[in-house]
Amino acid sequence: MGKTLIFGHKNPDTDTICSALAYADLKNKLGIPAEPARLGSVNKETQFALDYFKTEAPQRIETVDNDVSEVILVDHNEFQQSVDNIKDVRIAEVVDHHRISNFETSEPLYFRAEPVGCTATILNKMYKENKIEVTKDIAGLLVSAIISDSLLLKSPTCTKEDVDAAYELAEIAGINLEAYGLEMLQAGADLSDKSVAELLTMDAKEFSMEDAKVEIAQVNAVDTAKIYALQDEINPEIEKIINEKNLDLFLFVVTDILNNDSEVLALGNGKAKVEEAFHVRLDNNNRALLKGVVSRKKQIVTALTDAFTK
Amino acid sequence: MGKTLIFGHKNPDTDTICSALAYADLKNKLGIPAEPARLGSVNKETQFALDYFKTEAPQRIETVDNDVSEVILVDHNEFQQSVDNIKDVRIAEVVDHHRISNFETSEPLYFRAEPVGCTATILNKMYKENKIEVTKDIAGLLVSAIISDSLLLKSPTCTKEDVDAAYELAEIAGINLEAYGLEMLQAGADLSDKSVAELLTMDAKEFSMEDAKVEIAQVNAVDTAKIYALQDEINPEIEKIINEKNLDLFLFVVTDILNNDSEVLALGNGKAKVEEAFHVRLDNNNRALLKGVVSRKKQIVTALTDAFTK
Repeated sequence: MGKTLIFGHKNPDTDTICSALAYADLKNKLGIPAEPARLGSVNKETQFALDYFKTEAPQRIETVDNDVSEVILVDHNEFQQSVDNIKDVRIAEVVDHHRISNFETSEPLYFRAEPVGCTATILNKMYKENKIEVTKDIAGLLVSAIISDSLLLKSPTCTKEDVDAAYELAEIAGINLEAYGLEMLQAGADLSDKSVAELLTMDAKEFSMEDAKVEIAQVNAVDTAKIYALQDEINPEIEKIINEKNLDLFLFVVTDILNNDSEVLALGNGKAKVEEAFHVRLDNNNRALLKGVVSRKKQIVTALTDAFTK
Repeated sequence: MGKTLIFGHKNPDTDTICSALAYADLKNKLGIPAEPARLGSVNKETQFALDYFKTEAPQRIETVDNDVSEVILVDHNEFQQSVDNIKDVRIAEVVDHHRISNFETSEPLYFRAEPVGCTATILNKMYKENKIEVTKDIAGLLVSAIISDSLLLKSPTCTKEDVDAAYELAEIAGINLEAYGLEMLQAGADLSDKSVAELLTMDAKEFSMEDAKVEIAQVNAVDTAKIYALQDEINPEIEKIINEKNLDLFLFVVTDILNNDSEVLALGNGKAKVEEAFHVRLDNNNRALLKGVVSRKKQIVTALTDAFTK
């Protein structure tokens, strides 16, 4: 019997990293060996949380090795967001809060998806169901994941369960939710040292929508204008990605974490679908302001999928 | 807000019917309106359970009507096994124990699959999690579903959870598990009034395996020879189905409920895959005995999928 690895999606965000760490902790406390892993670099927001709660980042892997007998996916299920050789490994479990798409197994498995704002909220419940106490540091990681996915409880993806879990976990972690949350989000929104290529890939996810291949990259920022001052460099970089991956649409989403709006840039043959999906007109720079839109999952992917499916 | 419908797969079996009835009961007791439904005729085994526990079969539907705002799938997730217009309706939840394949949504949902032998076992847990008491008749339906899917706890799909649930529910239902179970299975294995066409469709499921379309029909019998005495009539009927549905393989599985073996008949261009998957040779009648094989899900679909994927 080989190892069990637990990991989230490519371009890991705080929920993906913290959920892998927490679920491995829960499994270990239940006497089941399992190791957390990650499929990419740790971003600044996540690093802030890991440092604050004195936790090492999980091991980085590129592919799943032969000594691994099964994997557990957290915070994702779509194969194109997972490890490259996902089709060659046995998936024992999935714990997720996204739509289900491009996922299949040949055998029954434990698959738990709930329509909440964050995987960490489900994991918090799983600790309770298994009567395992959440330690201070694990509580800190879980609440960081909720803050991240919900933009401090402001995203429309955020449910009452997420809010309740966040306050409960903040107390165990010994933090003031608002103060810690804003500090963590601002650490993540510090883009000063990012190259244009990094901005476009640091939190990018690919989706299949009907027959179209769509990539959506999102960054949180305090000042969106500062990012779009670089548009002359951004455009050719996106065109390169579109050609390399044969995409129908690349949507770059810059989310203003203070005002909770997003300014998007759409390139590719499918860019008219953005206008259709959000009832906006792209300006001469192929940009549009999406008022109140902060959630890729609940506001962007759903609307775009509908537009491509028509 | 329209109705919520709860239903299992086409060619309903006892788990599909009883799980739809039980989950609607649980939802209603939680104050959530929901109606059970079914996508086909009630088989004799299921009718035996319904009669014994004085329960009406759920309403039969052909498609989901416009007054339905969302559906809950039990005991299946693959779209080709579901209602024909499944792609046009909002799937709010899935409770299942099968592999996941050919399933997708544009929005997050509650999806609960567990690798147990029967959906009813998961529902029994959900009653407990929600602190709702299982009544005598609901317990009877749930234990009937477990008996059916596990061939009286003998199938390799049957887990400790299923066994524990079965004994617990049998007590609430006031039945002797063995005696009731054998009587129920024998009611289902009475094929005397079935036409050949009915034998091939009464419990048939279609699967996508790599690029192949495979249909697997299963019947339980006390005397498999009696069924295959009709092979001259069975063959042309299967050929007709293969042509109509453009199948690569049709596998007819006759399961001996007393000896727990299956005798299969394979037709279609992909029939060599059956030999590969089970390390058997089809005889001149395209038949083979699969010793100890009783589970379509755990023993047949997995082995065939592997053979088609190579």
